[in-house]
Amino acid sequence: MEQQDKANRHQLIQNWIYQAADHIRSSMQDPLQVSEKTSRKDLVTNMDKETESFLVEKIQQSFPNERILAEESSNQNTQDLNGVVWIIDPIDGTLNFVKQKHDFAIMIAVYEDGIGQMGYIYDVIKDEMYVGIKDQGVKCNQKQLSKVDDTSLAKGLVAISGLLLAEGNEAAKQVAKRSSGVRIVGSAGIETIYAVTGRIVAYVAASLAPWDIAAGKVIAEELGLMYTQQNGEPIQLLKKNPVLIATPSAHKEIFELLQGVSSK
Amino acid sequence: MEQQDKANRHQLIQNWIYQAADHIRSSMQDPLQVSEKTSRKDLVTNMDKETESFLVEKIQQSFPNERILAEESSNQNTQDLNGVVWIIDPIDGTLNFVKQKHDFAIMIAVYEDGIGQMGYIYDVIKDEMYVGIKDQGVKCNQKQLSKVDDTSLAKGLVAISGLLLAEGNEAAKQVAKRSSGVRIVGSAGIETIYAVTGRIVAYVAASLAPWDIAAGKVIAEELGLMYTQQNGEPIQLLKKNPVLIATPSAHKEIFELLQGVSSK
Repeated sequence: MEQQDKANRHQLIQNWIYQAADHIRSSMQDPLQVSEKTSRKDLVTNMDKETESFLVEKIQQSFPNERILAEESSNQNTQDLNGVVWIIDPIDGTLNFVKQKHDFAIMIAVYEDGIGQMGYIYDVIKDEMYVGIKDQGVKCNQKQLSKVDDTSLAKGLVAISGLLLAEGNEAAKQVAKRSSGVRIVGSAGIETIYAVTGRIVAYVAASLAPWDIAAGKVIAEELGLMYTQQNGEPIQLLKKNPVLIATPSAHKEIFELLQGVSSK
Repeated sequence: MEQQDKANRHQLIQNWIYQAADHIRSSMQDPLQVSEKTSRKDLVTNMDKETESFLVEKIQQSFPNERILAEESSNQNTQDLNGVVWIIDPIDGTLNFVKQKHDFAIMIAVYEDGIGQMGYIYDVIKDEMYVGIKDQGVKCNQKQLSKVDDTSLAKGLVAISGLLLAEGNEAAKQVAKRSSGVRIVGSAGIETIYAVTGRIVAYVAASLAPWDIAAGKVIAEELGLMYTQQNGEPIQLLKKNPVLIATPSAHKEIFELLQGVSSK
């Protein structure tokens, strides 16, 4: 993807996200229509759907020949990642959006032949726009971010899926104990932001979908974090993945704990 | 404590907190002197100590005959709660302060003969000042807060000490599973703010010290939350307590789970 093409897309994408976020914020006092998807912990609202429709329409108007993989769309007939593919999560952290009105994000990524070219995570309430462009680093609200320090597990906080801990997963418990402490935000996008800004050294997620991963992976890798499946294999972007995002040294430690081959 | 006395104290306390917070924020780029207290997860910094010294000095100047119970003071010779006692936590969430530079709070409470009269939690980075005055409700940045809705455990998010989950505590796991999800902030003050603003329906904390409890208890109880030990007994303010803060209905459910007398 050419430099100029990326620059043109960037202006459009950022604009669309700000417009979508304005709509979400101005609707926050209105009653929400909330439905359960797979369980009472997996929700979708009219705002997820409206936001997705808005973004999909904008993309289709400007890029009619490009495919879109989006969380709330029923026809996700994307069998491969050839050409340009847009991957969007209109509201990442819907449970937080419904219950807290905080800690949710709009996420958009542009992939080309399976390679992440552009990633956007926008924290709607904090008004923080994280933009990662392949080989150009990451900016938050125009300000260039530094590469992350390679902090060890013992010296850092970690985010772990609440479900893993609530299920008593032994490896997750070991990761928690060896870290300085556990934090749980409940939005893959915002937990990825915590990792790229050094607030946590690792994020261990039980099962992330393509739209939970796509934007954050571009952003995290640009800043020197490792972003893999929990077994160390590369992410398979067209399916759900157990994910480990971490600094290189925390990644090595956690990977070993998760594989049960810890030297201790 | 007379109305006018409280009004006078309020102006002073709020002012002191803002001054202390300005100092913390303006020092955030300076190198911190960090020491371990009981473990690598229990830290104290020069900023905790400086902030505490500042607040203690201010209190002693204005109220020389009143006692002070403060986190970092070595001579915490408070054997009873007779008369007016100040209880302060200069930086609640020191680990967050050190590792994240977010999600920490200054907390001050004024108790009289064991009854909480005034409670302050100030989120330094978000610039949110929560003020609870006995029988006068709670304000955040001057705006009066509503009483909390009596939301059930199943319909709400909960905060649980990371340690309880990492240890595989069975009751904590049950609470997590029956809730809509777990969130962990790592600051008792900010987790109490989450409860009073309805972001979570309960906060289950393994062991809180007097300075973790005092301000939040005034604020939480003014808004209709229950604030007790985990066995349902009243808080013993001069020692550490396993704490359960919750809406009335979530309190009943969680209390039963923690006692192992769930009807399920």
